[in-house]
Amino acid sequence: MKTTIAEVKNYVGQEVTIGAWLANKRSSGKIAFLQLRDGTGFIQGVVEKSKVTEEVFQIAKSITQETSLYVTGTVRVDERSPFGYELSVTNLQIIHEAVDYPITPKEHGVEFLMDHRHLWLRSRRQHAIMKIRNEVIRATYEFFNDRGFVKIDPPILTGSAPEGTTELFHTKYFDEDAYLSQSGQLYMEAAAMALGKVFSFGPTFRAEKSKTRRHLIEFWMVEPEMAFYEFEDNLKLQEEYVSYIVQSVLKHCELELKRLERDTTKLELIQAPFPRITYDEAIQLLHEKGFNDIQWGDDFGAPHETAIAESFDKPVFITHYPTSLKPFYMQPDPNRPKVVLCADLIAPEGYGEIIGGSERIHDYELLKQRLEEHHLPLDAYKWYLELRQYGSVPHSGFGLGLERTVAWICGVDHVRETIPFPRLLNRLYP
Amino acid sequence: MKTTIAEVKNYVGQEVTIGAWLANKRSSGKIAFLQLRDGTGFIQGVVEKSKVTEEVFQIAKSITQETSLYVTGTVRVDERSPFGYELSVTNLQIIHEAVDYPITPKEHGVEFLMDHRHLWLRSRRQHAIMKIRNEVIRATYEFFNDRGFVKIDPPILTGSAPEGTTELFHTKYFDEDAYLSQSGQLYMEAAAMALGKVFSFGPTFRAEKSKTRRHLIEFWMVEPEMAFYEFEDNLKLQEEYVSYIVQSVLKHCELELKRLERDTTKLELIQAPFPRITYDEAIQLLHEKGFNDIQWGDDFGAPHETAIAESFDKPVFITHYPTSLKPFYMQPDPNRPKVVLCADLIAPEGYGEIIGGSERIHDYELLKQRLEEHHLPLDAYKWYLELRQYGSVPHSGFGLGLERTVAWICGVDHVRETIPFPRLLNRLYP
Ligand SMILES: [Mg+2]
Ligand SMILES: [Mg+2]
Repeated sequence: MKTTIAEVKNYVGQEVTIGAWLANKRSSGKIAFLQLRDGTGFIQGVVEKSKVTEEVFQIAKSITQETSLYVTGTVRVDERSPFGYELSVTNLQIIHEAVDYPITPKEHGVEFLMDHRHLWLRSRRQHAIMKIRNEVIRATYEFFNDRGFVKIDPPILTGSAPEGTTELFHTKYFDEDAYLSQSGQLYMEAAAMALGKVFSFGPTFRAEKSKTRRHLIEFWMVEPEMAFYEFEDNLKLQEEYVSYIVQSVLKHCELELKRLERDTTKLELIQAPFPRITYDEAIQLLHEKGFNDIQWGDDFGAPHETAIAESFDKPVFITHYPTSLKPFYMQPDPNRPKVVLCADLIAPEGYGEIIGGSERIHDYELLKQRLEEHHLPLDAYKWYLELRQYGSVPHSGFGLGLERTVAWICGVDHVRETIPFPRLLNRLYP
Repeated sequence: MKTTIAEVKNYVGQEVTIGAWLANKRSSGKIAFLQLRDGTGFIQGVVEKSKVTEEVFQIAKSITQETSLYVTGTVRVDERSPFGYELSVTNLQIIHEAVDYPITPKEHGVEFLMDHRHLWLRSRRQHAIMKIRNEVIRATYEFFNDRGFVKIDPPILTGSAPEGTTELFHTKYFDEDAYLSQSGQLYMEAAAMALGKVFSFGPTFRAEKSKTRRHLIEFWMVEPEMAFYEFEDNLKLQEEYVSYIVQSVLKHCELELKRLERDTTKLELIQAPFPRITYDEAIQLLHEKGFNDIQWGDDFGAPHETAIAESFDKPVFITHYPTSLKPFYMQPDPNRPKVVLCADLIAPEGYGEIIGGSERIHDYELLKQRLEEHHLPLDAYKWYLELRQYGSVPHSGFGLGLERTVAWICGVDHVRETIPFPRLLNRLYP
């Protein structure tokens, strides 16, 4: 029976054949232990000299790391292994021998591993991160589909941009100038007026010269936008969504979290509702924590976010930021227009902001005034303004950064490991 | 009870309030019929002069198209409407009045509608297409998740490209040159060697000056790639997948297909297996159909694809194209190296090619030779070649174009209506 490692549980006591790669091995005189991987999982193959032909045992002894092969063996329950099963090997058939595989079980520098990202993905750690990323993606579709959201794909190539043309990648679009989208939000607002509740999930681009563990040049973002949702509805959806993906990973990626040595007790706490503090309270909290420099009107940096997050064991919403700190489209608080009806969601354990969101301005005159204050070209935003001319309604939305969220859930330090092929400053290969 | 049009079925006989827009209306002396939409669906609201206040009846008589409002009314079963329910209105509360909405129930030219795409999406027809697109996306995730595939997001920004640098959008990536990806396939091959079965689903870009009803500059593609899959396994997966999405749409989008007046008997036939003909047989078939010019070695154009499709009531695989017509990475047929182990899947009813796929070359020397024959720079493909140095295995994959597939399922003539904000030659707005 040809099968995969993920499926061996269905064949206990039976002989199966698996196409696989050798991840690692150890052997003594009469027995060899092969660590096998096939993409669906990892399993140990046990080759006993007394139970196989001389030729097969010689293969087991000499096989090199990352050689591809067909392994035939009997599935056995193995309670000592985290996976739970092993193979009593009866036959080995080499497909292709790998000579001098560059990534050995030794330690390698990050730049070396990044140069070999196409191979590094084969490692246990990267495999676990990619499976968790996949589960976050899967759970995201499930969450929004179950709630009647329509997936809408906003364009990547745009003639204009939400916040001016800094930090944008430029390209010639035949005779015109085009930019790579930093956010599909404005388009999602148009879609929400047509389809009610919508979400996007796609790549976005920031030509930012920052080199931090939280920044990627190209990253994936989930951007839901909802007609008739006000500030409070928006926060409620966000905490439900973030809880949902964390609980889905806990449920479906037990092995992977274990492999990453993630402290899952911290993730178990991630259940809605989440705590909320205002920007004003956050400033006060920072003063109490000894950040004496920061003043009302200043934006928070990573150290501030980390300090605020330390006071909570769940993600925390920081609400009502100064209007001056936020983009033009955010709805001012009617009772206090110098702050906006927005919230950033800060992950625990120092992972920083994972969501930014707000209620959007729905009044035509106010939106026009804000565009002018930001010196944005009205003709490029003509269509966006028109959304407020024809049946404008209160609406809200948010954007969640996939890689930061995956980094937090996995407990990995740097977002570069949370995307298959990271794009960083000076990193466009492979 | 505040609810949505999609949910009124749960409130028959009860009073509900819905945030909505006026799509259309007609009225006589004592009664007004409001066609309401809220993104989740369309419903008729019936306002009887005798049953509401004078003020509410005046609103019903004077309300303009695309005005937003809260509608309160009692849910009634209505067997004459395709939707099945209507509202006996008790109250209307205007949120925002729309003055001179540009898209009236009259006919408009396509360029006018495209200039107003942000509003055009609100129409019944566009709403139906977007819901079907959404269902194809949802079913795609379901299909691949259920089969153990891992979603992998290949980079959009790349330093090199599968097939040379023609028809690529260029951008400066800080000090380097980068191009927008036309296909994530090469990266998906690396991922398949790590994770076994993988799929991508994201935007791709072709800076092609073609202006046909089948081409978009920016379009979405599903690209699965599978280790240990050979030619035949690949075709089997494709026919199962295409059947799955068509049957999912039939099951979940009955109203939308009806609204588009789609002949669903044609879609009901779309069940695996699909017919297969070789390129050689296709040439012969074309000769029989009077295409006398076409010769062995020529590529098929849209008229050829349409003529071939006419002979089948399911999608048809055309297999074993001449090696010279196809990209460098396709595996030659070992019995006849002048053709490759590839297949294009041609949709019925003249919708053309929706899938291209093949087994990939897994032999290092052959791949290197093919790169050289195509004058491609070996250093840019170093990582890709390395996949054949370290445990190379037979593998296959394919790419499905989302918009062409949605156009076919919807029965719409031009792909421009199947993506929320199409990018075409001379079309970068809105
Ligand atoms: Mg911030
Ligand atoms: Mg073709």
